[in-house]
Amino acid sequence: MKLKHILNSQQFTQPLIRELFLRVNEMEQIVKRGGTRDYDRKIMASLFFGSSSLTRFSFEAAMSRLGGKVLTMENASAFFSVSPEDALEDTIRVVDDFCDVIALRHNEIGGASRAADVCSVPLINAGDGKGGQHPTQALLDLYTIHKETNKLDGLKVALVGNLADGRTVRSLSYLLSKYERVKLYFVSPESLQMKQDILDHLEEHKTWYTVESDLHKVLPEVDVVYTTQIERERFTGNDLEFNNLKKNYFIDKEAVKLMHKKAIILSPLPRFNEISRDIDNDPRAAYFRQTQNGMILRMALLAWVLE
Amino acid sequence: MKLKHILNSQQFTQPLIRELFLRVNEMEQIVKRGGTRDYDRKIMASLFFGSSSLTRFSFEAAMSRLGGKVLTMENASAFFSVSPEDALEDTIRVVDDFCDVIALRHNEIGGASRAADVCSVPLINAGDGKGGQHPTQALLDLYTIHKETNKLDGLKVALVGNLADGRTVRSLSYLLSKYERVKLYFVSPESLQMKQDILDHLEEHKTWYTVESDLHKVLPEVDVVYTTQIERERFTGNDLEFNNLKKNYFIDKEAVKLMHKKAIILSPLPRFNEISRDIDNDPRAAYFRQTQNGMILRMALLAWVLE
Amino acid sequence: MKLKHILNSQQFTQPLIRELFLRVNEMEQIVKRGGTRDYDRKIMASLFFGSSSLTRFSFEAAMSRLGGKVLTMENASAFFSVSPEDALEDTIRVVDDFCDVIALRHNEIGGASRAADVCSVPLINAGDGKGGQHPTQALLDLYTIHKETNKLDGLKVALVGNLADGRTVRSLSYLLSKYERVKLYFVSPESLQMKQDILDHLEEHKTWYTVESDLHKVLPEVDVVYTTQIERERFTGNDLEFNNLKKNYFIDKEAVKLMHKKAIILSPLPRFNEISRDIDNDPRAAYFRQTQNGMILRMALLAWVLE
Repeated sequence: MKLKHILNSQQFTQPLIRELFLRVNEMEQIVKRGGTRDYDRKIMASLFFGSSSLTRFSFEAAMSRLGGKVLTMENASAFFSVSPEDALEDTIRVVDDFCDVIALRHNEIGGASRAADVCSVPLINAGDGKGGQHPTQALLDLYTIHKETNKLDGLKVALVGNLADGRTVRSLSYLLSKYERVKLYFVSPESLQMKQDILDHLEEHKTWYTVESDLHKVLPEVDVVYTTQIERERFTGNDLEFNNLKKNYFIDKEAVKLMHKKAIILSPLPRFNEISRDIDNDPRAAYFRQTQNGMILRMALLAWVLE
Repeated sequence: MKLKHILNSQQFTQPLIRELFLRVNEMEQIVKRGGTRDYDRKIMASLFFGSSSLTRFSFEAAMSRLGGKVLTMENASAFFSVSPEDALEDTIRVVDDFCDVIALRHNEIGGASRAADVCSVPLINAGDGKGGQHPTQALLDLYTIHKETNKLDGLKVALVGNLADGRTVRSLSYLLSKYERVKLYFVSPESLQMKQDILDHLEEHKTWYTVESDLHKVLPEVDVVYTTQIERERFTGNDLEFNNLKKNYFIDKEAVKLMHKKAIILSPLPRFNEISRDIDNDPRAAYFRQTQNGMILRMALLAWVLE
Repeated sequence: MKLKHILNSQQFTQPLIRELFLRVNEMEQIVKRGGTRDYDRKIMASLFFGSSSLTRFSFEAAMSRLGGKVLTMENASAFFSVSPEDALEDTIRVVDDFCDVIALRHNEIGGASRAADVCSVPLINAGDGKGGQHPTQALLDLYTIHKETNKLDGLKVALVGNLADGRTVRSLSYLLSKYERVKLYFVSPESLQMKQDILDHLEEHKTWYTVESDLHKVLPEVDVVYTTQIERERFTGNDLEFNNLKKNYFIDKEAVKLMHKKAIILSPLPRFNEISRDIDNDPRAAYFRQTQNGMILRMALLAWVLE
């Protein structure tokens, strides 16, 4: 199959996901052998209108490991500073002549498709807006789950923390609804629960879910615990409430003891205070393997769109 | 011919420009074939004492497309922060041992020649000071005009907008005065007209010019419309005057209708509010081709000084 | 010998230093031939939690000259901004999967060893904290002295300026105490003299030293004058005292006249006002050769840990 722009997770059908996972497997072999020089005449521009160091580094490492070159613009809003309203389109129309693929981070929902409309080379959405899309993150989460648990059908996943604002948990719920007999446990305080549009989507696709506030009740049930940060800013002036939350949704040694032996803990790093460092060396702590998978999956996607 | 430092547009004689254009043509073929690996052991340092994202990206893309490596210092004034008065010379004397060519942006007129005086590798001036030189911009403007109109002798060019402060329009006027039967139309409000030193230079070289405030009268006459930004800051507290200006010197569909079918519109991007996005897909809108030519011309210059 | 992490200068025994210097010699030949492509599949991440442009550029130039690729994070504290207390360890555990070697600048003493504890690839300390270690600087100083004077045993070195805060002069004193019949002259105003712990160390190792405030008395005696900045901030509100100091410890033509013909002047650039630009072209001014040696020494170290 051909792939040009990568804009949202919805464009990834099950056959496309299957092909992607095969390509990631191949890429893992290439990485084990020390990378490749095959793309040494290819250039990726990473245009970041809004900072996200981990995502940028992951894309740039991926392109470098393919043998390719990287042009970095960390503060892309300065590129065409005088004309903010046209900055995105003008930047893309200039930069697409400088490179073979663009990784774009934008701060507005829909920024990636606006950019793709004027872009002559493949464009990969590296996150657009807080409530927008971040398809490579969703795909690397799904890939990590599959690689670690060896299943997708029949999977039981707890999504924990700030579900109301979490772009990653929304996208992941969406992707998981494509699979059979999946069970989703939304675990958060009431004020941060998953929004109705996703719940409606799950009902439509007959995906089982439950809304829950007690993490410890859910932990023994699931194959995957997907944690997200609860931002302190949400609780200014209310340290007590915040500290309670922190305690209730904190993954520490006690919490891990409640989990299956083969269950895993994931996180779209960076962590704040939702995962104790004490469990980093527990084999169930899969979040550093997850970032490594992320780089390799981005290698596979870059190689695919550059074909 | 040999070329070491590239400091100003005056150093480009007609024979040198002819050779440059031939080299750019060859480079266009190389780019069409996907670039080259010939310079894969060469390193360019881009030292930017003063931000100019588009110019920096263009140089770095050029070096990458040649197969070379790039060391980036976007905030070069921090390099030797404690000693601003010596910072430029000391930085150059350190960095010239780290690389094979330096692209330098500096914020003082004459910065590039001061730097070249102590530099053991070729140095390319990527702009020095607001009223200073930016030779690669002037050369890419000239190249684009030649490529698009297939002429230089006999050319009719309107230079529009803020001519008083415009480094690019000054350099371009200078370069065009080398050719026969060129006609220059300086189109701007009185307060922003081209300065006397350039008019004197044109008279000396017997280049025809006219000073004009009515853009619409000039548009049907010319082969090239070269626009520049009129900065809002020049008209603080006087929105009416500024809005009038904007209207009078704005290139939109109505304006384009007045132009020759084969005439072209150029701009040293970014644009502010001098060109309507409505005309971007008109074949006469040549400004995105211009930035692409810029990258290829810089490839040719880099390859030349690295010989 | 094998080398993994490079954390401090103490780990460099005399045999290790001998091997390093041989490797630097070989690397000098490689640089003369235009560098190498041998490391073209290797990736160095330069993680700088705290700015040091010269050191960063030197490491990145070194990796580029080896043919390798560089991932740059100039503002590494932003990498995991929400969780400063874990930022270092988490960053390393993520980034070590993206690259083959890490050059780390950190702002806390001991940062490099904390990082190495969780790092799966070789890590090179590029400076940790003001009073911490900066082993590659100490080694390049030692290498330059050896290369320029052709000796280490029997060497006479004046260390001049702010010795109380100077990381480089402390490390260099430490390294020099390993050699026979070395004489160290600590030349500074009383308030900025070398601290007791280093003096104790020298006594323990039976290294001769003297504490001195008169630079001009020492200059005729020594093979090496190692200067350091006296920061203006130390003397706010006391311009007279500061200007006196500046005059007393300033290396200008008069000072150079007092030196041996074959003695050399070194400096961990940038300079502030301790060395006159008038002497830059005197063959004894070795500080720009020193930064060049620094890049080549870092090439040798990178190649070594990548073996």
